[in-house]
Amino acid sequence: MRIVVDAMGSDDHPVPDVAGSVMAARKFGDTIILVGDKPRIDAELAGHDTAGLVIEVVHAAEAIGMKDAPGAAARDKRDSSIHTGLKLVRDGAADAFVSAGNTGAILAVATLRQTGLGRIPGILRPALGVVFPIEAKPMLIDNGANADCKPEYLLQFGLMGSIYMARMHGIPRPRVALISNGEEEGKGNLLIKEAIPLLEGSGLNYIGNIEPKEFVRGDADVGVVDGFTGNVMMKTAEAVAGYMSATIRKYIMAGTLTKIGGALARPAFNRVRDQLNPDEVGGAPLLGVNGVVIVAHGRSNAYAVQQAIWQARRVVENGIVAAIAEGAR
Amino acid sequence: MRIVVDAMGSDDHPVPDVAGSVMAARKFGDTIILVGDKPRIDAELAGHDTAGLVIEVVHAAEAIGMKDAPGAAARDKRDSSIHTGLKLVRDGAADAFVSAGNTGAILAVATLRQTGLGRIPGILRPALGVVFPIEAKPMLIDNGANADCKPEYLLQFGLMGSIYMARMHGIPRPRVALISNGEEEGKGNLLIKEAIPLLEGSGLNYIGNIEPKEFVRGDADVGVVDGFTGNVMMKTAEAVAGYMSATIRKYIMAGTLTKIGGALARPAFNRVRDQLNPDEVGGAPLLGVNGVVIVAHGRSNAYAVQQAIWQARRVVENGIVAAIAEGAR
Repeated sequence: MRIVVDAMGSDDHPVPDVAGSVMAARKFGDTIILVGDKPRIDAELAGHDTAGLVIEVVHAAEAIGMKDAPGAAARDKRDSSIHTGLKLVRDGAADAFVSAGNTGAILAVATLRQTGLGRIPGILRPALGVVFPIEAKPMLIDNGANADCKPEYLLQFGLMGSIYMARMHGIPRPRVALISNGEEEGKGNLLIKEAIPLLEGSGLNYIGNIEPKEFVRGDADVGVVDGFTGNVMMKTAEAVAGYMSATIRKYIMAGTLTKIGGALARPAFNRVRDQLNPDEVGGAPLLGVNGVVIVAHGRSNAYAVQQAIWQARRVVENGIVAAIAEGAR
Repeated sequence: MRIVVDAMGSDDHPVPDVAGSVMAARKFGDTIILVGDKPRIDAELAGHDTAGLVIEVVHAAEAIGMKDAPGAAARDKRDSSIHTGLKLVRDGAADAFVSAGNTGAILAVATLRQTGLGRIPGILRPALGVVFPIEAKPMLIDNGANADCKPEYLLQFGLMGSIYMARMHGIPRPRVALISNGEEEGKGNLLIKEAIPLLEGSGLNYIGNIEPKEFVRGDADVGVVDGFTGNVMMKTAEAVAGYMSATIRKYIMAGTLTKIGGALARPAFNRVRDQLNPDEVGGAPLLGVNGVVIVAHGRSNAYAVQQAIWQARRVVENGIVAAIAEGAR
């Protein structure tokens, strides 16, 4: 398998991007194609033992930063690592693209055929799925690709999420729910109310509307939501988890006995931390574009990059793109 | 002061509703008017020491349950405790209404002048504010009253939240922000993009768009959001906090040493629990209706009911309704 990794992606690029690629090349035996500033990548690679690994470097003269406006960057930085990497996938020179870079720019470049992959025929809007790193591992989709949605988009988010969860997580008939402000009939905004009959008639395993509590509990495998609310929901979950951890730590450190208690309880805290580590579930798949794209967190470390590459190869192996194309027909 | 309390409100009504009213009558010296099924209220009151307290009972032949569809209940159950209580406020027989009942029904009944209080002149849509029980104590508004919003509503939510936080929390010029999926220009859905110029030109202390992380950190005093997203956001925060607590407990209880550590660290956990206790910040004020209405959690205990009554009297004392009327002019 040939996987392209954006070496200019993460906040600390190219360090974790290159290190994670080396780890993945060794662990999975795949060909890794690093795209970006070739001199910097070569210098970074020189610090790694790459004997026996197949790691290629493709130069890209430009890089899109986290602060770049996605639309303008997609239009103007045609030689960016994102453009270059996605074209390798489009042209069949690689099987998947992994980046920890500017999410909006990846979306914008990937969605257009001229610059990237284009949409799968029949798919109205590609969407970002994210698997919540909680025990039930449910997917929330859309997680920010589409701030304004139509009911038909939500239907397709449900379809794409269902295909992903079935093939990647081995769930025969994933339970699909709309995320809403209440489960009762009559709850929801206009978008939700118009999406309900579409999902009911879809043939998906649609189980109704659920609230965030039920989503966190694992009542659905796929939570469908517009990209604005989904993004706010995901970021609220991250913010509250971080706040809780920091607050508990603060109060534990405030007393001698509680400090001792905290030290004894550390293995339990570590298990919680490991479970909530988003690296374990990988990056966010961009579903609906005509190729495999995984968007990793900007603050990814080498391990997170390796995991995103692992996820990308599994998306390829499991034929997610072809299955979505089949489902959208 | 005369405060009406819905005795048929909470999940365990009338037990906590009556007990909290007795506590409030003793603590604050106010007149409490309990509305609901008089025989049940009298029976419940008989179990309390009410010597020297001024507690009146007003009979209401019907009650609206948590499962009742709000619109239908507002229209059909004209003798409900909610209808009866709100009319007492409308007609000047009481200063405020407190209920732990069906939020949608309270909204529906309160918003119409025929059944309840009506809107403050100039206010397009009443909204539910909720103060997050985190260290910074920021208000999120709207928290579920309006699933579909126009930009003008968001502007007024900012105004009402600002007045509430200034007068109730003593913040001279509350920082008002729009909750969005990103802080950068160009982020947000259409609603947010259209609301930005309204807030910029409003004279409010508008500080821009913030993400949930910044809201949780306390970067704004008032986070403005449509009621659908706001409700999902609030419920996500509750769900994640509950999930974190349960997961930490589970792993602590899984080992002998961690269990001992957990016991030693208990005072720290208790401080976290106390800080995150929503009862301390009271219920959700329904802002924009022509009178004082506090909606408490359905699972309120007696203390929570007492706190909601305390909050209602402070809203009256601080002239929030008159200030909003002045601001909306």
